Amino acid sequence: MIVVMKTGVREESVQKVISKLVKNGYQIHESRGVEKILLGAVGDKTRSVELNLEAMEGVEKVVSILAPFKLASREFKAEDTCIKVGDITIGGEELQVMAGPCAVESREQLLEVAAMVKEKGARILRGGAFKPRTSPYAFQGLEEEGLKYLAEAREKTGLAVVTEVMDTRQVEMVAHYADILQIGARNMQNFPLLKEVARFNKPVLVKRGLSSTIEEWIMAAEYIMASGNHQVILCERGIRTFEVYTRNTLDLSAIPVVKHLTHLPVIVDPSHATGKWRLVQPMARAAIAAGADGLIIEVHPNPSEALCDGPQSLTPDRFGNLMEELRIISGAIGKRV
Amino acid sequence: MIVVMKTGVREESVQKVISKLVKNGYQIHESRGVEKILLGAVGDKTRSVELNLEAMEGVEKVVSILAPFKLASREFKAEDTCIKVGDITIGGEELQVMAGPCAVESREQLLEVAAMVKEKGARILRGGAFKPRTSPYAFQGLEEEGLKYLAEAREKTGLAVVTEVMDTRQVEMVAHYADILQIGARNMQNFPLLKEVARFNKPVLVKRGLSSTIEEWIMAAEYIMASGNHQVILCERGIRTFEVYTRNTLDLSAIPVVKHLTHLPVIVDPSHATGKWRLVQPMARAAIAAGADGLIIEVHPNPSEALCDGPQSLTPDRFGNLMEELRIISGAIGKRV
Amino acid sequence: MIVVMKTGVREESVQKVISKLVKNGYQIHESRGVEKILLGAVGDKTRSVELNLEAMEGVEKVVSILAPFKLASREFKAEDTCIKVGDITIGGEELQVMAGPCAVESREQLLEVAAMVKEKGARILRGGAFKPRTSPYAFQGLEEEGLKYLAEAREKTGLAVVTEVMDTRQVEMVAHYADILQIGARNMQNFPLLKEVARFNKPVLVKRGLSSTIEEWIMAAEYIMASGNHQVILCERGIRTFEVYTRNTLDLSAIPVVKHLTHLPVIVDPSHATGKWRLVQPMARAAIAAGADGLIIEVHPNPSEALCDGPQSLTPDRFGNLMEELRIISGAIGKRV
Amino acid sequence: MIVVMKTGVREESVQKVISKLVKNGYQIHESRGVEKILLGAVGDKTRSVELNLEAMEGVEKVVSILAPFKLASREFKAEDTCIKVGDITIGGEELQVMAGPCAVESREQLLEVAAMVKEKGARILRGGAFKPRTSPYAFQGLEEEGLKYLAEAREKTGLAVVTEVMDTRQVEMVAHYADILQIGARNMQNFPLLKEVARFNKPVLVKRGLSSTIEEWIMAAEYIMASGNHQVILCERGIRTFEVYTRNTLDLSAIPVVKHLTHLPVIVDPSHATGKWRLVQPMARAAIAAGADGLIIEVHPNPSEALCDGPQSLTPDRFGNLMEELRIISGAIGKRV
Repeated sequence: MIVVMKTGVREESVQKVISKLVKNGYQIHESRGVEKILLGAVGDKTRSVELNLEAMEGVEKVVSILAPFKLASREFKAEDTCIKVGDITIGGEELQVMAGPCAVESREQLLEVAAMVKEKGARILRGGAFKPRTSPYAFQGLEEEGLKYLAEAREKTGLAVVTEVMDTRQVEMVAHYADILQIGARNMQNFPLLKEVARFNKPVLVKRGLSSTIEEWIMAAEYIMASGNHQVILCERGIRTFEVYTRNTLDLSAIPVVKHLTHLPVIVDPSHATGKWRLVQPMARAAIAAGADGLIIEVHPNPSEALCDGPQSLTPDRFGNLMEELRIISGAIGKRV
Repeated sequence: MIVVMKTGVREESVQKVISKLVKNGYQIHESRGVEKILLGAVGDKTRSVELNLEAMEGVEKVVSILAPFKLASREFKAEDTCIKVGDITIGGEELQVMAGPCAVESREQLLEVAAMVKEKGARILRGGAFKPRTSPYAFQGLEEEGLKYLAEAREKTGLAVVTEVMDTRQVEMVAHYADILQIGARNMQNFPLLKEVARFNKPVLVKRGLSSTIEEWIMAAEYIMASGNHQVILCERGIRTFEVYTRNTLDLSAIPVVKHLTHLPVIVDPSHATGKWRLVQPMARAAIAAGADGLIIEVHPNPSEALCDGPQSLTPDRFGNLMEELRIISGAIGKRV
Repeated sequence: MIVVMKTGVREESVQKVISKLVKNGYQIHESRGVEKILLGAVGDKTRSVELNLEAMEGVEKVVSILAPFKLASREFKAEDTCIKVGDITIGGEELQVMAGPCAVESREQLLEVAAMVKEKGARILRGGAFKPRTSPYAFQGLEEEGLKYLAEAREKTGLAVVTEVMDTRQVEMVAHYADILQIGARNMQNFPLLKEVARFNKPVLVKRGLSSTIEEWIMAAEYIMASGNHQVILCERGIRTFEVYTRNTLDLSAIPVVKHLTHLPVIVDPSHATGKWRLVQPMARAAIAAGADGLIIEVHPNPSEALCDGPQSLTPDRFGNLMEELRIISGAIGKRV
Repeated sequence: MIVVMKTGVREESVQKVISKLVKNGYQIHESRGVEKILLGAVGDKTRSVELNLEAMEGVEKVVSILAPFKLASREFKAEDTCIKVGDITIGGEELQVMAGPCAVESREQLLEVAAMVKEKGARILRGGAFKPRTSPYAFQGLEEEGLKYLAEAREKTGLAVVTEVMDTRQVEMVAHYADILQIGARNMQNFPLLKEVARFNKPVLVKRGLSSTIEEWIMAAEYIMASGNHQVILCERGIRTFEVYTRNTLDLSAIPVVKHLTHLPVIVDPSHATGKWRLVQPMARAAIAAGADGLIIEVHPNPSEALCDGPQSLTPDRFGNLMEELRIISGAIGKRV
């Protein structure tokens, strides 16, 4: 980290900063220019936030040089992390498509979708039993009943199950039924929840928060990893901007950035990002071309009757077309679906 | 709500939409133009999100006319809501200043700050016992020990206590010690937590999420109110933009907007919004001039030794100056501190 | 357009709005609900902004139903617009790659790059002679001298030339040398410049403004088209968000959206969008997969000596690799480079 | 500036960077840590952008320490700049209110508004003769005829005149009629225009761009100052965010920030920022409380008949009330209107 001292700072203030840094195990390199004194401080990057140097007299600003994450970083682990769910690998040469309805609505609906997405080539079933809804008057999910249907669909189809958990009190229950625990965008910085999901030996899919920087998103993964669970999958799902035509703005450049900074697999959710089924197909193709390790796609047998997010759901036929296209694009970049 | 049908839509599709609306208790007014057919639908505004009309064939878009909140709205309750905490009123002619350290760090620190902010004129003590920190390696709060110090400070000074709760499992404990429960910006859409805090008969202070629209923020209040607790205080604390000089961008126009749309009191947190103590004073003055019902301000006896957010904390002296200024500004607009 | 009247509005105010609309040639459909009166108004969509209805007594809000552009819309022209530059077609099955240095720096530099990008398969040469620089102390371009080098490079290589024009006083000069006139992101709403470039019979490439909605971007095209020049190419180059790792956030979903709303070709600039050469290749692939009609890429023989935007420039070798990859991706989606 | 070298960089690359810096007159301080080598470079801050170090081999990132502006900075000139327009001073203890219609619509309209805002206490008349409109089909202004009416209004009332100039070809004409030249938000980075307005010996009011950082905004002032005209007034008018209730988000924290970083006066435009007349009054009060040197307010005798931006215009009566309130607030902070 670099500490920039104010123009005309008193020597005493400089020495106090140096002394605080040294006491905390940092090594100091001074740079005294005509206008500014700079202090280069080398030490444990995970502790710098604690030092609170910007509140010290004479300090103009503190510039971080190293990223604040450790376990998630490429420097910590150079090779890509591959995550195993049964015989499925996320983060390898095979791209994984997670598909299913936004919400589990009934046993029939779920079993129907599950059979269908399996047939089209998906290997993981998505479906929400607990739904984070902006309105308290909207459908909030079937809760444990929904989890049971997911487990039944897994038995019947062999698909693995990914589903969201929203409440620390329910993590154990969700972990009992699901193969992958999903942290939703709105909970990306729900720190007690991040610590709680780490307690179970299950992969965790962490959606990027609506207005989270890439660094904050990786820090959410770091929370889980620092709590002992290194099986983290990142999921880009669009960020909030001023654009109103799409629900969010899908940030595909996040894919190569995450691949550069971390060793974790990263997948893309074009359904929530765009909010419009018509945009799902081109954005799914683009995500794969940008290097994503997989996709999570909403599919509903009858989108106009969906209890949640129908406008962004693909019909089974459209999902089938998408899978065909993904096979071709994947092949072009040396991967396979 | 208005349903805009696509150019060239088939009559059958129009009838299906009408029939779904009618079945759900809506009254329909058709507008058939040369290019577009519009359906005006009048009915229960809290249910419209459930109808999923945008996924129906022939529907181009659905435009909401009424705000999606009911209990929080001015239409529902015309007069301002005043919230009582002992003999303190939030939302009346007296502006309330909540002050204290970002985090409770020790018994001594807290009692010292409490005595001091009381002396300068604050009537409510703030201080975090559970801290949402971006880094898992940062100080996470003293937890129940911190709550006990807050309760002790209340006994000693007569100040009321506001403190954050982050985990559904801890709401009962926090409610045992605190007078006002705070929902942090990162938890504004933590829906299980919103429902849980409503269970205790305590006022809830809801911070606006970092990238939340005013409508979503009011919907968070609606969640708590729909769960039976109408004592909600809104708190603007800055939104995320592209500007990097300040930590966030304080949206003071949200104050008159909230006052127009709802009957709830609204306060402002200039400390977190700006991230720099130097900006706290002018923004606090501006917040009062814009019509805020109060402020929440970070004060620390020694900001450079703070375990959290030192750069934005006022020293006791600066806090004293601020209170002086607020007395003058309040007087100019017919209020008092 | 829908005019929503306030709850409890006086009949007289409703009639005044109706009368203003009728006087302006609109046809009215009234919808009188319990809470709200809605007026559906059908007429010339390009005039609605002029009516200023929101300032009339009793009007709560005005909701536009139709997009505010006409000439650029799919409704106006159903088939894709293909733009011809010599024997090059932009907007057809062949994807066009525009490549070259950020700034024209010298005759030697430009001729070297031109020969090289031609050899790798580009058909259009980019290079700035007038440079919009944030700092008045930065290199501002070679001006007419730079334009002459571009023309010479065209003669020597057969590449067409695209270059930016920034000042209404220079449009005639730039049009004399260039094949395609470029409107930079910062000038997307420089309306006098948009009108001026329309006066010359040359295609115009309109970059999306840093914080422009898709609708505003299309309106910039509409300005040029309304002034008589229908040869407009849109160029997505990233929007400004809170993310700091990339220079801007490339909004690839804008591609299918523009294709849906308009008949104009759309290309992508991954160099300016990301600001980092390492991200250019994956984003270029993704842009093609999302349906872009072409790319504009910065290439410099020696990026570290570039006078402008070196960090985002590809070396010739990397550009060659990119072209190889684009051939494969294009083939996979039924197009060619 | 600090140059951060990549982990494992070759010594040769480090030496090349040092050598380039030294050749450009920079003094170097090396900091060699275990993970990273940092080079502190001290020299001419206005030249650093030219060096293009980030494109050199082995460079991870370059961190600027000093702001990129010189003439506008507090370091360059410690005391506040006061700008004189006749006997009016902008930037002193007297707050200046600029008021008038969005657009000059007719001689009658303008003279009526001018007399009225003068009577209520404004000393500067605003009114657009050239209007930047998003739609080519909207009213574009009366052009020179409008300028003549502004000049006539000045003669009749003694008010000074501020009006926008959009085209380099019209600066001379506008400067002939106006006392203060206005650069609109959309032209904040129209660099040829910034250079051109500097040529005339008139104060220039620079509106902040819709998505401009504070630093970029100050750089626009620096462009004008570097071209020889130091009479620059900054104007905050709201930035673009995801919030949709207000037209833009008024960033009042920009006022103390600009005052801290520069010596220039700063005023606020609450009319364009909010887009709603109801919000103008509280935001005007807040701007003054935050330390603004003045305001620019839209006033129209009949907002519902305005040709432009009626919904945000105050009626004469409301403007009178606002002036009363401003007198009280100003007094409270030791200033006067």
